[in-house]
Amino acid sequence: MAKEGVEKAEETEQMIEKEAGKEPAEGGGGGSHRLGDAQEMRAVVLAGFGGLNKLRVTRKAMPEPQDGELKIRVKACGLNFLDLMVRQGNIDNPPKTPLVPGFECSGIVEALGDSVKGFEIGDRVMAFVNYNAWAEVVCTPVDFVYKIPEDMSFSEAAAFPMNFVTAYMMLFEVANLREGMSVLVHSAGGGVGQAVAQLCSTVPNVTVFGTASTFKHEAIKDSVTHLFDRNADYVQEVKRISAEGVDIVLDCLCGDNTGKGLSLLKPLGTYILYGNLVLTPCNPHLLSFQWWQVEKVNPIKLYEENKVIAGFSLLNLLFKQGRAGLIRGVVDKLIGLYNQKKVKPVVDSLWALEEVKEAMQRIHDRGNIGKLILDVEKTPTPLVSQKQRDLFSSRSESSRCRHKRGVGRWGGRKCRQGSAGQGWRRKPEVTK
Amino acid sequence: MAKEGVEKAEETEQMIEKEAGKEPAEGGGGGSHRLGDAQEMRAVVLAGFGGLNKLRVTRKAMPEPQDGELKIRVKACGLNFLDLMVRQGNIDNPPKTPLVPGFECSGIVEALGDSVKGFEIGDRVMAFVNYNAWAEVVCTPVDFVYKIPEDMSFSEAAAFPMNFVTAYMMLFEVANLREGMSVLVHSAGGGVGQAVAQLCSTVPNVTVFGTASTFKHEAIKDSVTHLFDRNADYVQEVKRISAEGVDIVLDCLCGDNTGKGLSLLKPLGTYILYGNLVLTPCNPHLLSFQWWQVEKVNPIKLYEENKVIAGFSLLNLLFKQGRAGLIRGVVDKLIGLYNQKKVKPVVDSLWALEEVKEAMQRIHDRGNIGKLILDVEKTPTPLVSQKQRDLFSSRSESSRCRHKRGVGRWGGRKCRQGSAGQGWRRKPEVTK
Repeated sequence: MAKEGVEKAEETEQMIEKEAGKEPAEGGGGGSHRLGDAQEMRAVVLAGFGGLNKLRVTRKAMPEPQDGELKIRVKACGLNFLDLMVRQGNIDNPPKTPLVPGFECSGIVEALGDSVKGFEIGDRVMAFVNYNAWAEVVCTPVDFVYKIPEDMSFSEAAAFPMNFVTAYMMLFEVANLREGMSVLVHSAGGGVGQAVAQLCSTVPNVTVFGTASTFKHEAIKDSVTHLFDRNADYVQEVKRISAEGVDIVLDCLCGDNTGKGLSLLKPLGTYILYGNLVLTPCNPHLLSFQWWQVEKVNPIKLYEENKVIAGFSLLNLLFKQGRAGLIRGVVDKLIGLYNQKKVKPVVDSLWALEEVKEAMQRIHDRGNIGKLILDVEKTPTPLVSQKQRDLFSSRSESSRCRHKRGVGRWGGRKCRQGSAGQGWRRKPEVTK
Repeated sequence: MAKEGVEKAEETEQMIEKEAGKEPAEGGGGGSHRLGDAQEMRAVVLAGFGGLNKLRVTRKAMPEPQDGELKIRVKACGLNFLDLMVRQGNIDNPPKTPLVPGFECSGIVEALGDSVKGFEIGDRVMAFVNYNAWAEVVCTPVDFVYKIPEDMSFSEAAAFPMNFVTAYMMLFEVANLREGMSVLVHSAGGGVGQAVAQLCSTVPNVTVFGTASTFKHEAIKDSVTHLFDRNADYVQEVKRISAEGVDIVLDCLCGDNTGKGLSLLKPLGTYILYGNLVLTPCNPHLLSFQWWQVEKVNPIKLYEENKVIAGFSLLNLLFKQGRAGLIRGVVDKLIGLYNQKKVKPVVDSLWALEEVKEAMQRIHDRGNIGKLILDVEKTPTPLVSQKQRDLFSSRSESSRCRHKRGVGRWGGRKCRQGSAGQGWRRKPEVTK
C-alpha cells in the first residue's frame, strides 16, 4: 500500500461553518487552491472512531505508488453504509486511527509503480482501495484497478465496483440465479438493492420482492416486481403473493431477519447474509445494534428443509482471501452488461469532500436512492441558515429534485437533507 | 399410495436356516413358487424397529394402482444406508411398523391407474417409492416413475435414482460445480460417492478428493484424484495437497466432520450435509451415533469467511416438498449422460429378497463398492456351514470375486460376507 505522509490536520468543519458564504465559487478544482504544495493533497481523515465530528478534511503528503501499484488522480469516491460502520469502529479488527476512509473510487491514472503492466498514464479507471479512497490521490495495487468504458462517467464508475460486484457475485456465484426464480432484497432503494434489481432483469422471468422506506416506493417501483415498506411484516406479504416463498433472500439487515429470511426460502433456496456485518460481540458500539443477535443455524434443519445459507463479504474476498482474479472476471462481465446498456449505476447525489458528514448522515437516515458519491472536484454547497432552510422547504421540491436515472422520478418526495451540524445545512446536489 | 393388504407373516429367516440345502435350485422366479395365489406377492417386511431379526420376507396382498399411480412388476430394488437407519427407527417421524422398506426400484409397468398418461403396460422403468419398494410389485405415483434406456439393466436402473439424482443435484443445483473446481466426498466407494466421482469427470479439470476404507482403494483409485483412508486426518491430507482447501465438501458423516468440512472450504466454497440424517435427539437409538453432535453454525462466521452451508435430502424434496417436476428434469439429464456413456451405476452385489439381512450387514460394515441391489428374481444362495466357510475362506478369492464395472478390480481384497445370522453364511454374489 502507499506510504502515507504526516497529517496536517485542518479543522475543515469549523472552517466551513465560520467561512460559510466566503467559499470561492469556482467549479472544477474545488479546495485544491488551499494546497500550497503539489506534494500534498486533500483527504477525508477519521481522527478516531465515533460520531460525525471525528471526520475532517486534511492535507496529507502525496502518496507515491509502490511496486505493483497505480497512482490515481481521484475524481469520485463511493460512500457505502460500511463506511458508517467504520467511522463508528463497528468492525472486526479495526485499523488504527487516524485513517482515510473509503473503499472505492474512480479517476485517472497518474503514475505507474514498478512492474505494473496493462495500464498507461491517462487511463480512466475505477478501483477498490483497502481504505484511503476518500482523497484527491490514491495508490492501490493494480489487481484492484479496472479500466472504465468511455461513456461511463466518473460518478457512475465510483458507484459501480462495490454494489455491482456484490450483487453479481451473490446472485450468480453464490446463489446461481436462473430463469423463473424469485429474489427478496432488503433496502431495495440502496446501491446494492438497485444493482440487484437491474441484474435480476437480465435473467428471464425473475420476480424481485423488495423492501424499502415507503417514501422511496414511487421512485423505485419500476425496478422491482413487488415492493413492501421496510417496517411491514414482509414475510406475510411475500407469502401472500408466493405461498412457497422465494428462491433467494439477500439480507443485509440481519438480527431477527435471519430467521425470517430462512423461513421464506423455498426448498433448495439460498439465504445470503452480506454487507455491513463486520461486528464483534466484544465491541461496545454493538449495543446500539441488534446484529449480534443473529441466530446460529442448525445444519440438520438445513438438511430437513433443503436450504442453503451463505455469507458474503466482498472486502474480505478482495483484501483477505486473495480473490482479485476472480473478481476481475466478474468486473469484466459487468462492464459487458454496462456496454449492452443492461445495467447502469444509480447515483443518488454528489457531495464535496467537505460535505462528507452530511452525506454520511443521509445514508444513516436511509435517505438515499442509489449511491452517494463524494465528488472530489465539487465545491461545497454554501450552508444555509435555519431561516433560509424554512424558506427552502416551503417551496415546491419538484424544481430542484431532478429525475433519477433508471428508477423513474423522485416524484413528490421530499429531498432529505443532511443533518450533521447544528443550525446550518446544505441542500443536497442530486445527480445530473 | 397403494393400499397394502393384510400381512401373512412368514418366518423366512428361520425357514431358510432350517431348510438350508433344500431350496429349489431353479433360477428366475425364485420364491414366487411359494405363492399359491396370484393376488399375493412376496415382500420384505420390517416387523418393528430394531436389529436384523426384525426383517422378514412375507406374503402380502397384491397392491393395485390408485388414481395417478403405476403398478410395477419389480425386477430389482436399491438398498441404501438410509434403509439401515429406517430399520433401526433412527428417522424423524418414523412411520408405523410393520412396513415394507425401500425407496427405489426398477421393473416393468404392469397396470396403469386412472388418469395416468405417458406410460404403457410393458414399459421398462425405474421409480422412487415412499417405502414399499422391496417387494415383487409396487404401486407409486406416475410423478416418480421414469422410463429407462434399452441398454440399462434392471440392476443398474435400481442403482440409479437415489445415488445419481442426489449426486447431480448437490453438485449442480446446490453447489454449482464448474470447470477447475475441487470436491471432497466421503465414502467415495459407496453409491453416492461413485456417482459423484463420475459426474465430476463430466466437468473439465475437476479435482476429486475422496475418503474410503483402505481395502477399497485399489478398486476405486481410478475414479478419484486423491484418495485417503476414512480414518486418516483428511483435513491435513487435503491441505497438504491444496493449502487453500476445496470448493465443495459433500458430507454424509456429520458430527465433528461438519466443523472439519467447513474448515476445508475455500472462500465461496459450499459444504453440503446430505444423506442419512433423519435423526431426532429424542430418539434413544441416537446414543449409538455421534450425529446429534452436529455443531450449529454462526452466520456471521459464514459472512467473514465467505462460505456456504447447505443441507440436501432427496426424499424430503420428493415426498414432502413436492419437487417431482424438478427431479424429473434432473433424471432426464442423467439419462442423457448415461446414453452418452458418461455415467454408469456401479453395482456392488445382487441379493435375493431373502438375503436382505446379509445385504444390510454388508452396507453396515461398509463392505460395498457401489450399490447393493435386491434382485427380486434371484434365488437365495445356499447357506454354507462354518466348516464350509473355513474351506471357502482358505481358497483364493480371485476366482470368485469378479471384476467391478468402471472401478477396476476387486483385486486381492477379501470378499466381505454377510454376518447376520449365526453359524450359517451365504457367499455374496458379485455383479455380472
